[in-house]
Amino acid sequence: MLPKSLKKLINSLSKLPGIGPKTAQRLAYFLLQSHRSLANDIGDTLLHIKDEVTLCSECNSLADMANKASEEEPIVCGICNNGRRDHQTICVVEHVFDAEAIERSGEYAGVYHVLHGRIAPLDDVTPDDLKIKELVERIKKHNARGEKLEIILATNPSSEGETTAFYLQKLLQPFGVKITRIATGIPIGADIEYADEVTLGRAIKGRQNY
Amino acid sequence: MLPKSLKKLINSLSKLPGIGPKTAQRLAYFLLQSHRSLANDIGDTLLHIKDEVTLCSECNSLADMANKASEEEPIVCGICNNGRRDHQTICVVEHVFDAEAIERSGEYAGVYHVLHGRIAPLDDVTPDDLKIKELVERIKKHNARGEKLEIILATNPSSEGETTAFYLQKLLQPFGVKITRIATGIPIGADIEYADEVTLGRAIKGRQNY
Repeated sequence: MLPKSLKKLINSLSKLPGIGPKTAQRLAYFLLQSHRSLANDIGDTLLHIKDEVTLCSECNSLADMANKASEEEPIVCGICNNGRRDHQTICVVEHVFDAEAIERSGEYAGVYHVLHGRIAPLDDVTPDDLKIKELVERIKKHNARGEKLEIILATNPSSEGETTAFYLQKLLQPFGVKITRIATGIPIGADIEYADEVTLGRAIKGRQNY
Repeated sequence: MLPKSLKKLINSLSKLPGIGPKTAQRLAYFLLQSHRSLANDIGDTLLHIKDEVTLCSECNSLADMANKASEEEPIVCGICNNGRRDHQTICVVEHVFDAEAIERSGEYAGVYHVLHGRIAPLDDVTPDDLKIKELVERIKKHNARGEKLEIILATNPSSEGETTAFYLQKLLQPFGVKITRIATGIPIGADIEYADEVTLGRAIKGRQNY
């Protein structure tokens, strides 16, 4: 009974993560009813996004295709291209949005390396599926130039993130780089009373001089 | 730091109902990572949907523009166009998807009239904002042909839906049509123990011979 294009839209939207058929229906109807510019904006962006976004050749974060200066030059993202950032500190994150979150903290002036996932045997994700080879190559290049590197392991403090950090630490040790791990502990604004025991244990173990 | 088109997509998606910035980010990233055909499908449909879908000139439900036979003929939906349906029973619903849900029940062979909302003074929705005038015109046309009509009021059993049903009942009474209201009561599969008192009261009041 529903028009064909509406059915098609509902069907496509329900393939998105966390969007069930009811939500897809509601979204499709909203898009149909709302101002033409919203549907056009989303539609237009979707048709071009795959061609406009690529991976940074340096850190594997996302980069604008428009940053490409010439045909031969590799594309780098705004951070890798920024001469005022500390290129001898590399923060290793699981996903692009983790880097984005660290950027918002305003506390980091180094560069990133995006793994695009974490080691997760249960999901069939092995080290070969991540951008680990690229990280090693990057470190080798720095070492060849005789630069002192710090690698900050900023994978999530989940069991898989911890596994990944442990794996990387073992792997990178031989390269003589300084390897650090982001601090875990009670988040700012939280109640110690309600903190889980693992977090609290970490907070005690990781206590610092005041 | 994020590529421009990704930022734009996140921004547009977060204008959708129930989609906050975090969900928009997740959806945009998923669309960027998933197979090109999904982004293309959604993008393409969104660019054309406004031109491909229109309101049925009969019941105000949604109709395919492709149903238009000639330039002069008004567009009607598949149900209004179906000669095997009972055109003397009109089920009045708030939204297109309500009609869609009733269709799925397989218990209804009449036609629909979509109000596109319900009377809601708090949201500034008055009878003039709904397709009520069109319903009256439709009834007048049937009356002129001397046909016996039944109008089923299938607005939601919410306070606003009940108000709308009450308003319509008062308005349509003078036209000499049979007016009915969908039954309210305990839904199939529910526990009487956990039913709310209003529903339970309605179920008792509306009891039927066994």
